[in-house]
Amino acid sequence: MPLPKSIATVCLSGALPDKLEAAALVGFQGVEIFENDLLTYDGSPEEVGRLCRDLGLAVTIYQPFRDFEAMPEPQRRRNLDRAERKFDTMQALGTDLILVCSNTQPATLPEAERAAADLREMAERAAKRGLRVGYEALAWGRQVSLWRQAWDIVRQADHPALGLILDSFHTLSRGDDLAGLEAVPAEKLFFLQLADAPRLSMDVLSWSRHFRLFPGQGELPVADFLRDVLRAGYAGPVSLEIFNDEFRAAPVRRIARDALRSLVLLDDQVRGAVPVPASPLPAAPTLAGIEFVEFAVDDAAREALGGFLGTLGFRRAGLHRSKAVELQRQGGVNLVLNSEPDSAAAERFEMFGPAVCAMALRVDDPDRALARARALLSPAWQERVGQGEQRIPAIRAPDGTLVYLVRTGSDIWADDFQLLPGEGGAPAFTGIDHVVQALAPGHLDGFVLFYRAVFGLDAEPVFELPDPFGIVRSRTLSAANRTVRLPLNVSESRQTGTGRFVSAYAGAGVHHIAFAAPDAAALVAAAPDAPMLEIPENYYDDLAARLGLEDAQLAALQRAHLLFDQDAQGGRFTHAYTQAFQDRFFFEVVERRGGYDQYGAANAAVRMAAQARQQKK
Amino acid sequence: MPLPKSIATVCLSGALPDKLEAAALVGFQGVEIFENDLLTYDGSPEEVGRLCRDLGLAVTIYQPFRDFEAMPEPQRRRNLDRAERKFDTMQALGTDLILVCSNTQPATLPEAERAAADLREMAERAAKRGLRVGYEALAWGRQVSLWRQAWDIVRQADHPALGLILDSFHTLSRGDDLAGLEAVPAEKLFFLQLADAPRLSMDVLSWSRHFRLFPGQGELPVADFLRDVLRAGYAGPVSLEIFNDEFRAAPVRRIARDALRSLVLLDDQVRGAVPVPASPLPAAPTLAGIEFVEFAVDDAAREALGGFLGTLGFRRAGLHRSKAVELQRQGGVNLVLNSEPDSAAAERFEMFGPAVCAMALRVDDPDRALARARALLSPAWQERVGQGEQRIPAIRAPDGTLVYLVRTGSDIWADDFQLLPGEGGAPAFTGIDHVVQALAPGHLDGFVLFYRAVFGLDAEPVFELPDPFGIVRSRTLSAANRTVRLPLNVSESRQTGTGRFVSAYAGAGVHHIAFAAPDAAALVAAAPDAPMLEIPENYYDDLAARLGLEDAQLAALQRAHLLFDQDAQGGRFTHAYTQAFQDRFFFEVVERRGGYDQYGAANAAVRMAAQARQQKK
Repeated sequence: MPLPKSIATVCLSGALPDKLEAAALVGFQGVEIFENDLLTYDGSPEEVGRLCRDLGLAVTIYQPFRDFEAMPEPQRRRNLDRAERKFDTMQALGTDLILVCSNTQPATLPEAERAAADLREMAERAAKRGLRVGYEALAWGRQVSLWRQAWDIVRQADHPALGLILDSFHTLSRGDDLAGLEAVPAEKLFFLQLADAPRLSMDVLSWSRHFRLFPGQGELPVADFLRDVLRAGYAGPVSLEIFNDEFRAAPVRRIARDALRSLVLLDDQVRGAVPVPASPLPAAPTLAGIEFVEFAVDDAAREALGGFLGTLGFRRAGLHRSKAVELQRQGGVNLVLNSEPDSAAAERFEMFGPAVCAMALRVDDPDRALARARALLSPAWQERVGQGEQRIPAIRAPDGTLVYLVRTGSDIWADDFQLLPGEGGAPAFTGIDHVVQALAPGHLDGFVLFYRAVFGLDAEPVFELPDPFGIVRSRTLSAANRTVRLPLNVSESRQTGTGRFVSAYAGAGVHHIAFAAPDAAALVAAAPDAPMLEIPENYYDDLAARLGLEDAQLAALQRAHLLFDQDAQGGRFTHAYTQAFQDRFFFEVVERRGGYDQYGAANAAVRMAAQARQQKK
Repeated sequence: MPLPKSIATVCLSGALPDKLEAAALVGFQGVEIFENDLLTYDGSPEEVGRLCRDLGLAVTIYQPFRDFEAMPEPQRRRNLDRAERKFDTMQALGTDLILVCSNTQPATLPEAERAAADLREMAERAAKRGLRVGYEALAWGRQVSLWRQAWDIVRQADHPALGLILDSFHTLSRGDDLAGLEAVPAEKLFFLQLADAPRLSMDVLSWSRHFRLFPGQGELPVADFLRDVLRAGYAGPVSLEIFNDEFRAAPVRRIARDALRSLVLLDDQVRGAVPVPASPLPAAPTLAGIEFVEFAVDDAAREALGGFLGTLGFRRAGLHRSKAVELQRQGGVNLVLNSEPDSAAAERFEMFGPAVCAMALRVDDPDRALARARALLSPAWQERVGQGEQRIPAIRAPDGTLVYLVRTGSDIWADDFQLLPGEGGAPAFTGIDHVVQALAPGHLDGFVLFYRAVFGLDAEPVFELPDPFGIVRSRTLSAANRTVRLPLNVSESRQTGTGRFVSAYAGAGVHHIAFAAPDAAALVAAAPDAPMLEIPENYYDDLAARLGLEDAQLAALQRAHLLFDQDAQGGRFTHAYTQAFQDRFFFEVVERRGGYDQYGAANAAVRMAAQARQQKK
């Protein structure tokens, strides 16, 4: 049986009923009622409890109860009175569990016995009403900041209505782990909260309050943590408690869906621990590259884009048998130009002008990949097909673009396209090296989770690039075998205006496609009409000073507008950019040597400044 | 003579020529050319140097030269070759000084003698070309991270073309100071960079790269730092080096003006140190409250707003003799409703609908205040006046709203207004307690500097408030005598949409005015028709649990929709909000007791959720 899934209302945006409805809609079984969400709501606790029941949601916990234990009098007495008031609220809500987090007040007494006595008294009062108290160590608690300290106090207090609450963030953010948890009786583990986070070097309080992420979006070993808790015998709900400014500002259903997706993936990652989920996820696909990228165009844009691609050696290689769709091909690269009216592509063109509307990944088993996607809340999507044409399954990425699933080695072209004879230009591209997407602010973490969960891609750490008008945050997802590489960019610039190259694409998806060339210089030389992006001479002067390149080598780079990067192991990256097509997207020619595994980030500022200049012209 | 003022190109947005033009336009005398700005520019160093000369800007320094000293061979040799190339660039730019920052490479040798020998060699080569080398300790340098370590190395190297560069951020961010600087010969102090910053607990590298501020915007003792440097005999330029993501995304001239304003203020703050500025700033005004707030309205909005105010006991107390302007008054509060066509108010109404367009501060000496503002790059502004009417001087705030300057104790009403008889409603307001402005993202630091510099207000630390859809950052400026209090809010929510109460006002300036009442409950009770904001019952339940208020006291608060806060010293704050007027702004009734000096931030989430509900209806 999969673990019961719960989410704290603080994770989601909007008023309390919006949060509850979204949680229920996507499929959560329970919610933590976060106190501030109740205080700011104009319905009574009874009404909230009723709404939860109507929606089929259990109220798993009421939280937090702060700054309770080990206070001097008269605060101690007053805190117990306060607890009685909150017990009233819990009974009205219909939950039996309250979370007490360790006291942060400077006045907290440093005596564990006092803390234990206070919690015992609170538990005794709770038990009289059939309620329970869970105690959790806050990472920044005054006297108690580790779960072992909290457990010592719970053990000393020794009351059946008092137990321990664990939170992955509070433990992992301190560099701590769960070693020793097996000594805690399972019935004393009252509740489990999970949160991931990026590794940030800032104070743990700010880190916790603003930058938490859903499991799988960050860099903490949350799955290992959960496995340890399950092995210790915990069998209650897993509950998400994520404080994140971006999530609080995003549409509530999207975030709720991301939240549940993260727990479905976790379920699968802890398979083998007890309890075993009944229906394990189908395995992630083995990827073998990008079969094609599809552009939404109209007739005029199709002509223009075909001409633009022609300067790089592409040729029209096929026409769709029943739709206004053409195939442009150069070596191992397939680009589909779709101007069919009334299609998903037409919708996209309507919204964004010429833009990438789909991408096809080669997978070992499309059916299995589709089943996995469905289990991860990404339903299949099907474009209408003509008689005798192939039905290529697809799923929608979080921004609505399509990801087609093509069986590795199969020929998807012959059935649907009338292929046109012609020779390819030499030298040829070997395939698509990477596809870069510009996301709207607030969308990075959701995309990361989607690609990680559905396609099993690895996420590299976040990287920051300066552009002429702000900062671009970049995170790359890639297959372990590197046949698929998908850098994701988000511009942090708040303003949109002219001259903002990157942010102009925010939300419009793919802004750049890199083609792999065995010899980038030869390829550019063979494409004299290609509108390559001009690189300032100062760049080459600096390259000479930094890397000590030979004059001849420098001159060759400069002639072809090529940029150059080198990694610590001597891997080399030679690349050139085209100018942008209708200010919408551009192409890159890349040559990797010696195991170079990055994307020339050192050159990004030069590229972006050159593009800003080009746009100005 | 005031200190020569310089700015690093990295502080400003846009392409290199835009940066240089803005720096020259606002009045800088010099610029630091930041290497990356040159590398990404498609003009040659000669062209950049010529442009600077044409603009009347000295190139004060070329920077940074990284990871130079104490490297093992062959890197050492290669670094010296790299230096020669950079010397070429400097000569082309027309500057004689390069900044070498302490090496961050793991391979840096831990030997100060090696560092000294390398810098000596570099200085010797520079001297042959008439150039100089300045060495600066980066706060995160591998072996050298304090200015004293850098000075030890410069002293050991002992070359006339080698000196020390100081940077306030690198010293102050480490909690270090300049004690001992008097032992350094003045001729060894080659250059001075200044930057402020908020106090943030994060790693110093990220802090430095993203969150630096201009002096006066942050919390570091930059003026003390500068005073120490001047006392040590430094007589070169003061130069700003600010890495800030928001500044990089803002219009270049606005940021350049903020930058120069910060240095003009600094000049004044270090008066008494050597050299003495020739023309000290006129002293900041002594404030005595807010004489009036003025709203831009049209005829319909004037009627509606007058009616709205009437429910709070305001009455029409005067009509302007020559313009479509009326005075609404309640006790000590004056509100001006301006529907005059072709005025600054009309412009504002055109842009924002009904909105605050001006505010008048009572100052001891308007002429002196005006002269100070002018010296701080905030020129005077003058509305046209009718025959016999008063000419009230004003300056423009950074968002274009007007700040009038009224001499304390003078009567500005009798000349211009036909005052209407009538009794005020009792109980009366005693005055305007505070005026809250919602700023567009990226404008907080500029406003803070404006009010601090021009009016001598104190800035409290930044405060963060959760709203239902994101985070609001708040920082309050107030007069030392607390007669003027101006909280500034910025919504961090990226999206704008319905239901976003705070962000709806972003950029529209004042969104709320608080009136001081001796007895808030009595005032609200006397205003039964006032559309007060309804507060959920859960709020009062929690208040009871938290503060242990008496039932009668709670009931009285709840009846009048009053919120309550209490500070650690027992000061009390009782306040109530009106609903918003036409979804644009709202009013607050506040009662302070026992020295309470805050703004009820604990209740802000309750208020914002209630407003979001009201908006939805």
